[in-house]
Amino acid sequence: MKNLGYYNGKIGELESMTIPMNDRVHWFGDGVYDAGPSRNYNIFALDEHVDRFFNSAALMDIVMPVTKDELKELLQKLVLMVDTGDLFVYYQVTRGTGIRNHAFTEGPGNLWVMLVPATVSDGTEPIQVITEEDKRFLYCHVKTLNLLPSVLAAEHAKRAGCKETIFYRHGGRVTECAHSNCHILKDGKLFTAPTDNMILPGIARAHLIRKCKELGIAVSETPYYLKDLMEADEILVTSSSNFCLRVDHVDGKPVGGKAPELYEKIRKAVVDEFLEATNKPVSEKAES
Amino acid sequence: MKNLGYYNGKIGELESMTIPMNDRVHWFGDGVYDAGPSRNYNIFALDEHVDRFFNSAALMDIVMPVTKDELKELLQKLVLMVDTGDLFVYYQVTRGTGIRNHAFTEGPGNLWVMLVPATVSDGTEPIQVITEEDKRFLYCHVKTLNLLPSVLAAEHAKRAGCKETIFYRHGGRVTECAHSNCHILKDGKLFTAPTDNMILPGIARAHLIRKCKELGIAVSETPYYLKDLMEADEILVTSSSNFCLRVDHVDGKPVGGKAPELYEKIRKAVVDEFLEATNKPVSEKAES
Repeated sequence: MKNLGYYNGKIGELESMTIPMNDRVHWFGDGVYDAGPSRNYNIFALDEHVDRFFNSAALMDIVMPVTKDELKELLQKLVLMVDTGDLFVYYQVTRGTGIRNHAFTEGPGNLWVMLVPATVSDGTEPIQVITEEDKRFLYCHVKTLNLLPSVLAAEHAKRAGCKETIFYRHGGRVTECAHSNCHILKDGKLFTAPTDNMILPGIARAHLIRKCKELGIAVSETPYYLKDLMEADEILVTSSSNFCLRVDHVDGKPVGGKAPELYEKIRKAVVDEFLEATNKPVSEKAES
Repeated sequence: MKNLGYYNGKIGELESMTIPMNDRVHWFGDGVYDAGPSRNYNIFALDEHVDRFFNSAALMDIVMPVTKDELKELLQKLVLMVDTGDLFVYYQVTRGTGIRNHAFTEGPGNLWVMLVPATVSDGTEPIQVITEEDKRFLYCHVKTLNLLPSVLAAEHAKRAGCKETIFYRHGGRVTECAHSNCHILKDGKLFTAPTDNMILPGIARAHLIRKCKELGIAVSETPYYLKDLMEADEILVTSSSNFCLRVDHVDGKPVGGKAPELYEKIRKAVVDEFLEATNKPVSEKAES
């Protein structure tokens, strides 16, 4: 099939799938999700994503209806049902089903999967971004379905002909983007916001940090500000859909471009890691 | 029927209704809602609720699929299909349907209605509440479906054997409750948080203020703090489900109870307004 939807055991193309009206997601956005790419039917960094998914659920007191191993097995099985092996592999759990009431329903949540064709950018094309005040809640470390502020920010970027919106809090502290993490290179070092409740602990972010340290690039997980952003040697935007993008304009002003070789070294390291991990065709994988 | 679900023209009991998986509410909580009570099939303060509903949609750039008059007509028609005329009349609009992408879908949103039996409290029984830091976003003036922090707070209240959670921001500034507004009486005056982006402009709140002014009770819409809350003569909690409740314990400590006659005067005024507006049996209403 061309894409796939899964809900509590039912499977079909997304356009044909339906959800019970009493699922709590409808009244409260009451759920958490995770997502990452697959290539050649290989789901990348699945253990890390599933660990984060279960952590998000635990932080919101949502009872998982499957074990980690069951979920991984299910996802591996489902990706093989889609026409292409290059996919956005998305899954979520919503708290349960019942007549609308803020207090929790009892028992395990509802499990959803969505698979749509997608390819990961290699990061060679720079992107343009805008900035916007971060008005989000203080649960940004949890990958919840309460994403309206990110929806608005992404639409604002699109209307400005840009790819992302960089958020800043009061005092100009840069947190992250509408659906990515944000980092700067300055004087040969990587600066990135710490993993408090104002940013998502991105898995692409974790890979970026790991690769920088392997390459001998110092990493400082400390707050930085709009002024630092505008004066950075390079601005990097990372997500599980686009591992390492370089920003060349912020709010229409040229930025970065002062450490192209360092950026290229980092970009190549994180993209190569993905390509190597997902290179094996799935038929070969099945035999191994 | 015992309850009712409506989605883009389809009608059925809630338990039988289903929603397309690609509705954006599923990935982003991308929608806004409004709700209020009906009694004897009379929907209370419908104009005010529908005005706020359309305002919420406009603030989130959601295109309404109906006019205000069409919506009111639809709601009046739907309530008559339910076995009881004492209902919680809930309606929402979600941004649209499409493959998951943060930026907006084009065109009008999807219209939902939910009707469930409910009666409004007369406020004669005091309630107990807890307090909690307000970690919500800065779009609290919009009635969105991004309600996870309120869900968590409501569950915390329930686990503590309480009915509501009063939120406070940094510095102890009281904002509102998980699903109600909050006010205090002190020295014969009503103090209530101003309608900025930290609270919902409650319709029960507006009625309370109007009634207080009619009764000659001064109203100050200015910030107040936890200390003021604990030292209040009375603490009032208002919502469109429970117009005027009195708090007698906050975090287990006895509070209020120092202006019972003033409270009773206010309670009676707001409850009587509702009872009078919804007293006419629907058959009589149809003839008039």
